Amino acid sequence: MNIGLIGFGTIGAGVVEIFNTNPDIIMKKTGMELRLRRVVDLDIETDRGVEIDPGILSTDADDILEDPEIDIVIELIGGYEPARSFILKAIENGKHVVTANKALLARHWDEIMDAAREHGVRVAFEASVGGGIPVLRALNESLAANRIESIYGIINGTANYILTRMASEGMEFDDVLREAQRLGYAERDPTFDIEGHDTAQKLIILTLLGFGVHVPEDELHVEGISSIRRDDIEYATAELGCSVKLLATARLNDGELELGVTPTLVPHHHLLSSVNGVFNGIYITGDFTGPVMFYGKGAGRRATASAVVADCMDIAVNPEGSMPTGPGIRVVESVRDFSRTSSRYYIRLDAVDRAGVLHEIAGAFSRHGISIESVTQKGAHEGETVPIYIVTHEASEGAIQGALSEISEIRWVRGEPLRLRIL
Amino acid sequence: MNIGLIGFGTIGAGVVEIFNTNPDIIMKKTGMELRLRRVVDLDIETDRGVEIDPGILSTDADDILEDPEIDIVIELIGGYEPARSFILKAIENGKHVVTANKALLARHWDEIMDAAREHGVRVAFEASVGGGIPVLRALNESLAANRIESIYGIINGTANYILTRMASEGMEFDDVLREAQRLGYAERDPTFDIEGHDTAQKLIILTLLGFGVHVPEDELHVEGISSIRRDDIEYATAELGCSVKLLATARLNDGELELGVTPTLVPHHHLLSSVNGVFNGIYITGDFTGPVMFYGKGAGRRATASAVVADCMDIAVNPEGSMPTGPGIRVVESVRDFSRTSSRYYIRLDAVDRAGVLHEIAGAFSRHGISIESVTQKGAHEGETVPIYIVTHEASEGAIQGALSEISEIRWVRGEPLRLRIL
Repeated sequence: MNIGLIGFGTIGAGVVEIFNTNPDIIMKKTGMELRLRRVVDLDIETDRGVEIDPGILSTDADDILEDPEIDIVIELIGGYEPARSFILKAIENGKHVVTANKALLARHWDEIMDAAREHGVRVAFEASVGGGIPVLRALNESLAANRIESIYGIINGTANYILTRMASEGMEFDDVLREAQRLGYAERDPTFDIEGHDTAQKLIILTLLGFGVHVPEDELHVEGISSIRRDDIEYATAELGCSVKLLATARLNDGELELGVTPTLVPHHHLLSSVNGVFNGIYITGDFTGPVMFYGKGAGRRATASAVVADCMDIAVNPEGSMPTGPGIRVVESVRDFSRTSSRYYIRLDAVDRAGVLHEIAGAFSRHGISIESVTQKGAHEGETVPIYIVTHEASEGAIQGALSEISEIRWVRGEPLRLRIL
Repeated sequence: MNIGLIGFGTIGAGVVEIFNTNPDIIMKKTGMELRLRRVVDLDIETDRGVEIDPGILSTDADDILEDPEIDIVIELIGGYEPARSFILKAIENGKHVVTANKALLARHWDEIMDAAREHGVRVAFEASVGGGIPVLRALNESLAANRIESIYGIINGTANYILTRMASEGMEFDDVLREAQRLGYAERDPTFDIEGHDTAQKLIILTLLGFGVHVPEDELHVEGISSIRRDDIEYATAELGCSVKLLATARLNDGELELGVTPTLVPHHHLLSSVNGVFNGIYITGDFTGPVMFYGKGAGRRATASAVVADCMDIAVNPEGSMPTGPGIRVVESVRDFSRTSSRYYIRLDAVDRAGVLHEIAGAFSRHGISIESVTQKGAHEGETVPIYIVTHEASEGAIQGALSEISEIRWVRGEPLRLRIL
């Protein structure tokens, strides 16, 4: 089997490193030699820190896409174009595709999978969610006999690193973000990670595999973690026995699918609360297998490359295919509007400490039919701004939004209230 | 695809239940109907609590093994015979086999896999380790590009339930065991689970997949948990920040494979320490993927049946085969004798509290070159028997055994000293 690699960046170099390091294992497990025949990148000058025959480097993707000797194309350039065109051309030319491109799959799933079906080739994408954690194949194949009930995922290492450090070191969000950027755990523009978009794209793929439903990214409810403060995490830990995690959720409720990306309080007794730092965890419940969790490094050169090469090996052994994914296996009738989903909520707001404020706040919750479990106001001097921590009983997102919208209009409330779901 | 099921016990009934409950999912994922054509058991009178056409029940295994219409044989009777003969006959008759039989695979791996290769059929066995946790396929296929460095498994739910309850309720071993038996978490004769034999058989299978090495069960070092007392767990928790777990270990050390089943102190910051109750966790480190953990229900009717049916579905989609396992992928030179493996150790012994005892004990460690990290003797009156808790620095098992053998000869030491490894 001959392989062409498009995208000789961080992960691409990791792929080359695996082929350099473990050729014996690859040979024994597949019964054949998987040969990296061509590596394409716009930049083939930069030293990637791995040994490679310069003769196989090229800047022209067609050296792979048009080479009839190449059986598998690995796409690691990311983004929509030219990745989409390269993948479609590879498929049309009868080549299998291995990709880590979650953005592309989340948006162009049908187009790519339909093309693959039409041309009788495989598109493998284990690396697109959870990096080196073998969660996608497990969800698709090993849990195949189950009706999936729920998927909860901590699937962004940057966000999880920040939340973990805020908790362990008592640091504020901005300080940890700067530290994460210095250590290379966060991008210079971290928006994609900390505002939940990366998590959302991965959730779309998990939802395709678990429920056969393709939700467009712009219809997904996505919240990030940038409004979370140290005192939120301290209150969650000390008073509620919870960790704060950026959670992707896909779960069945009365036959409807509930989806969202939300920072969420996870009780300490739940195994997901022990998924710390840059690690990822995906917690899946099937009707027969019960809860299972997958844990590991969700990103990084070596871990992600491990998933990419395993996909190549799987295609080499099973070129005919794996179990179908996507709309063909749809088992859910409808997706519930996020405003109709419900949860217990943690709410924190800042208000001037004076008589009557709590009464006004409580009134807003009451008018929206929300029942309060606890209210805590840290002592302060009359007239100072203090945080108020509220925990509600089960309430709908719509009701919470309505109440918070009223509350932010109250004269003595400062800034935007924060709401976090409680798992 | 027609399926024959031999063994209509607990898990067999779970298998029937999945085919009754999720036929739509099975059809969508495989693109075909998987039909349970025949169910064989010696007892076909007992009500198993699942709906089944009485016309497909039989007491004669040949009704499956000799039926040319049957493509897949599920073996769920367990044990060596007649399971082995049934499986070999199924293979000879060109049928694929799905089994949860860890004892049989651990002992007769080569015979069964050679026969399957010869006859071009598959033997799938996801349910044999970790019940509903999809760890075996992940290890074999999803981590296929890795050189596996270590596998640590909590893979016996009974033992883990007992250790968890001892810790959370401050109970003694015998009391929890009785409770576990009452709740159905422990067998009436619990030896197989609590003395580590079940864990050992599963470790043999994990070692075949991860390292391509087949270790006979009688060459494996196996310790159980029945000598562990409440005060050991209390000391481990409070003084050492560890949980006690019955751990299967397979790890590379200087190119040699170290194997064993040992009760082990797992630090609280390690995710394995959060695997509680009847749950299982398998923590695997590959040279590229880094550490990954798989968590879920390691036993039980529904979870185990989930793995069995997923194997049937996988065979239906990929009858040609999966990646090879076993000696063909061997990547390790030799297995290290357990006495040459090393660890930090926790040691607890009971001794009469009198001058000179600690000196004698310390002398034994010293003569075997073992360096002591801490010694704690709970206060008592002169002449009473009290526990002494010792933590060593890294020492070889052989040295520890030598020292403990000397120590148990000391006149003032009562009973057998307990030693637990520290992860």
